[in-house]
Amino acid sequence: MDGRELVERLRRVVGDRWLLLDEHDLRTYESDGLLQYQQVPRLAVLPGTADEVRECVAACAQADVPWVARGAGSGLSGGALPVKDGVLIVLSRLTRILEVDLDNGRVCVEPGVTNAAVSTAVAPDFFYPPDPSSQIVCTIGGNVAENSGGAHCFKYGFTTNYVTGLEVVLPDGELVTIGGKELDTPGYDLLGAFVGSEGTLGVATKIWLRVVPVPEATRTLVAFFDSTRQAGEAVSAIVQAGIVPGAIEMMDATTIKATEAMAHAGYPVGRGAALLVELDGAEAECDAQFTEVTRICADQGSDDVRVSRDEAERALFWKTRKAAFPAMGRISPNYFVQDGVVPRTTLPDVLVRIDELAAEYGLTVANVFHAGDGNLHPLVCFDAAVEGQAARAEELAGRILDVCLEAGGSITGEHGVGVDKRKHMAKMFAEDDLAAFQRLRCAFDPDGRANPGKVMPTPRLCGEVPGVYRQHPLEAAGLAERF
Amino acid sequence: MDGRELVERLRRVVGDRWLLLDEHDLRTYESDGLLQYQQVPRLAVLPGTADEVRECVAACAQADVPWVARGAGSGLSGGALPVKDGVLIVLSRLTRILEVDLDNGRVCVEPGVTNAAVSTAVAPDFFYPPDPSSQIVCTIGGNVAENSGGAHCFKYGFTTNYVTGLEVVLPDGELVTIGGKELDTPGYDLLGAFVGSEGTLGVATKIWLRVVPVPEATRTLVAFFDSTRQAGEAVSAIVQAGIVPGAIEMMDATTIKATEAMAHAGYPVGRGAALLVELDGAEAECDAQFTEVTRICADQGSDDVRVSRDEAERALFWKTRKAAFPAMGRISPNYFVQDGVVPRTTLPDVLVRIDELAAEYGLTVANVFHAGDGNLHPLVCFDAAVEGQAARAEELAGRILDVCLEAGGSITGEHGVGVDKRKHMAKMFAEDDLAAFQRLRCAFDPDGRANPGKVMPTPRLCGEVPGVYRQHPLEAAGLAERF
Repeated sequence: MDGRELVERLRRVVGDRWLLLDEHDLRTYESDGLLQYQQVPRLAVLPGTADEVRECVAACAQADVPWVARGAGSGLSGGALPVKDGVLIVLSRLTRILEVDLDNGRVCVEPGVTNAAVSTAVAPDFFYPPDPSSQIVCTIGGNVAENSGGAHCFKYGFTTNYVTGLEVVLPDGELVTIGGKELDTPGYDLLGAFVGSEGTLGVATKIWLRVVPVPEATRTLVAFFDSTRQAGEAVSAIVQAGIVPGAIEMMDATTIKATEAMAHAGYPVGRGAALLVELDGAEAECDAQFTEVTRICADQGSDDVRVSRDEAERALFWKTRKAAFPAMGRISPNYFVQDGVVPRTTLPDVLVRIDELAAEYGLTVANVFHAGDGNLHPLVCFDAAVEGQAARAEELAGRILDVCLEAGGSITGEHGVGVDKRKHMAKMFAEDDLAAFQRLRCAFDPDGRANPGKVMPTPRLCGEVPGVYRQHPLEAAGLAERF
Repeated sequence: MDGRELVERLRRVVGDRWLLLDEHDLRTYESDGLLQYQQVPRLAVLPGTADEVRECVAACAQADVPWVARGAGSGLSGGALPVKDGVLIVLSRLTRILEVDLDNGRVCVEPGVTNAAVSTAVAPDFFYPPDPSSQIVCTIGGNVAENSGGAHCFKYGFTTNYVTGLEVVLPDGELVTIGGKELDTPGYDLLGAFVGSEGTLGVATKIWLRVVPVPEATRTLVAFFDSTRQAGEAVSAIVQAGIVPGAIEMMDATTIKATEAMAHAGYPVGRGAALLVELDGAEAECDAQFTEVTRICADQGSDDVRVSRDEAERALFWKTRKAAFPAMGRISPNYFVQDGVVPRTTLPDVLVRIDELAAEYGLTVANVFHAGDGNLHPLVCFDAAVEGQAARAEELAGRILDVCLEAGGSITGEHGVGVDKRKHMAKMFAEDDLAAFQRLRCAFDPDGRANPGKVMPTPRLCGEVPGVYRQHPLEAAGLAERF
C-alpha cells in the first residue's frame, strides 16, 4: 500500500471531515504541552469509534507507516509529539461514558473522556482520585498512556492503581481485552505494562476505571515556613506520625510570589515555603489528625497556619497551588517544567543542592511539588530572547535530574519519558534493563510503528534474537517519499 | 550440553550438599499445596545466593532443560509443580533480609524470606499488609509469583501493590533489575507483569517491598446471622456506607461447625453465617465506624455481635478464621479449595447457586471467603475412598467457577492459575487475548523453559511471527533421554 492508497483508505474509515491533510490544520497538533519540541505530522485522523481506531491502526500496519495516538495534548514530556512522516490518531471524539456501575465502583469510558468528567459522572457520592493539574482538559487515554499522577496520589495512588481493564488496539490492528471490570484477573498482568507505556504498545479504546466513595470529611490547611528545609522536615514528621494526608504539597518563595500575583489568596510574599496539607476520611479521624498536623507544623517552626473555613476558601487554596505553572509566566518569559523524584527523607538536602545549581547557572529555579511522594517539579526560568539562555536552562534541568538520581531517585515521577527524558534513561537503567524493556516493546510492536522515538534512549529494531537490535529504519531513511 | 554435563555443572555451582538426585529426597518436592497433582522432578538444586540462582538458570538454558522455581510450596494452584524431566530450583536458602529502611518505608529481601518475617523485621511500628493464611511458611518469592492476597487485601491491596522493585534472572540467564526502591520508575512497568506471572517469565532473586505504618487502633468483631444472604447484605451495606474495613470475612454454617471443633472460640454451631469485621486506622475513626458497623449488622438481622475485648480475643477470632482450611479435615476426609471471584453485589445469589449445585452433586460445599473482595473459597468436600467421588467433586468445583464467570467474575482471586486452572482460561479469555499473554511470555522465555505447562491453557512454542505457535516440544517428545 503506498501513501496515496493509505490516505484513501483512512478517508473511507473516518470520512472526509475527519481526515486532516492541510498543513494549517495540522499545525494545531505540532506539539503537546512540552513546547520546545515541534513536528507537524504528515496527516491526522479523528476516528469516531473504537472500530474506526482499529481500522486506522490496521491501515497503518498494512502501509508500514508509523503513527502516534494523541488525547488532549496536555502532556509535558512530548509523548504525543507527532512523527514527521507518520499518521496522528487524535482520540478527542471518543468521549462516551459507556457504563457507570456505582454498586461495584466501576466506570467504563472511551479514551477521549476528560479526567474531570469521570468524577463528574460519579458525583456526588464517588470520585476518581488521580488528579493531574490539567484535569479539566487532559483525557483518560492520555492518563493511561502516561500513568498520570496528581496532588492526591500520595494517599490514593496513580492511574495504574485505578485501571482494572483495557480494550486495546495492538500495532498490528488486533483488538484485545486486558483485565476487565474485576480487579486482579488471572493470567499475566499486562495492564500494568500497558498503563504508562506512552502509546508504544498500542492504543486503548475502552477503559474500565475504579472509582471510590467521596470521603465523609475534608480538611485543608496552608502552613507558612521560613525555609523549604523547615517545611520538608514537617512533611517527614507528619508521615512518620502515621498520618497519610490526601495531599501534601509544597511551594517555595518564588512560587508563592508568582501565584499570589495571579490568585490573590493573601499568601505572605517573602516567606520561604508554603505547605498545603489536605486530610480526608471519616469526620472523627479528620478532626483528630488535623489537630496533630497543626501541632507538627508549629513544632517545625510555622508561626502562620491557615485553615480553610469553607469550601470557597479550600477551593482558593487549591487554585493557588494549581495555578503555579501558568503563574510562573508572570515572573519569567519562559520556563521548563522538570519532573524528578527523590526519597522523601532527602528532600531538604536536594532542595539546597538545586538552589546551589541555580546560583551556579545564574538562573531562577522555582520549586512546587508533591512533597509526600518526593516528586519535585522544579521550574527552570529563562528568557529565550537572551542568546544561549535556553540551552543553559536545559542543561541545568538535566543537572537537576542528576541530583535526583544521586539521591537515589528517578528521572520522572508522573510526566513520563516521552522524547524529553529518553536521553536520561541510560543514566537510570543498565543496558540489560533497557533490553528487558525492549523485549516487551518488540512483543507487541515488532516493527516499531507505535509512537516511535519515545521512551527508549536509542530507537532500535526488534531482531529475531531477543536482545539483538538493528538501527530503526525511520532514522536510517525517511518515509517522506512514501506519500 | 548433555544431562550428565548439566548435573556436573550444577554441582559445581551449588556444591554437592545442595544438589538432590535421589528420588527419596526429591519426593519432598513432588507437589505444592495442591495435592491432587504430583510429579517428582529429575533433580533439585538449592542455591544459596542470587548469583548461584543465575548460574543454575544459565546452565539450564545452555542445556535447554526446563526448570521450575519453588519457595515454600504452600501454593494452592500447583504453580510449583515440578516438570518431569526438568530441574527444580528451590529458593528456601535465600532467606536474608538485605535492607530495612523505615524512613522511606522500604524493605529489601531475598525470595526465600517468609511473608511473616517481613512484618517481624519492621515491627512494631510498620507491617507488610498482604497476609495469606499461610503467612508463617509461605515465602515472598512465592507471593510475588502468585500475586498473593489475604484477608487484609480488601483495604490494603495485593502483593502487586507492595512490590516496588525486583532483581530477576531471566530464562536465558540474564540478570535484570525492574523498578527499584522508588515507586513508579520510568519506562515500561514490567513489575506488574512479573508479579503474578507464576514463574514463567523468570525468577526473582531480590525483592523491594513497601511497608506501611501499623494503624493506631484496631477493632474486631464477629457477627452471627441466620443466613449467608443476610451476612452478604450486611457486607454490601457496610461498603456502601463508605466504610473500608481492614478485613471483612465470611464463614458459612459448615465452616463455623468445623472451625469451632478445632479452635473452641465459643461460636454458635448451627448459625447460618459468621461475619468477621476488622476496622483499623486512627483511634477516633475506628470508634466512630465501629459503632456504625455494629448498627448495620443489627439492621441486617444479626442478634449476636461479639466484640473482641483484648488482643487475646482478637487473636482467637483470627485463629478461627485462619483454621478454616485445616479444620475442614475434621468433617470431611478430603476437600478441594476452590478460588473464584464475583462482583460483591452478586454474592448472595451466587452463594444460593453454589448450594443448589452442591445439592445436585450430593456433596457438601463449605464457604469461607474474603467477602469484601467477593473472593470466594468454596471447599468442596469429598471422600476419595468412595469410587468416583473425587472426580465428581472436581467437576463440581469447575461448575462453581462457571457460576462465578456467569456472574461477571473471575476464575481465581489470589491462588493463581498454575496447572489447576489452565483449562478454565479459555472460558474467560478470547483467543486473541490469550495470544497477547503469549506475546509477553515469548518475549522473555522464547524457548518455554521457565515453569512450562502452567498458566496458559495449551502449551505452545513461540513462533517467529507473533501469534503463530507450534506444539511445545515437551509434549511432543520427552526429555528423559537427555539425562
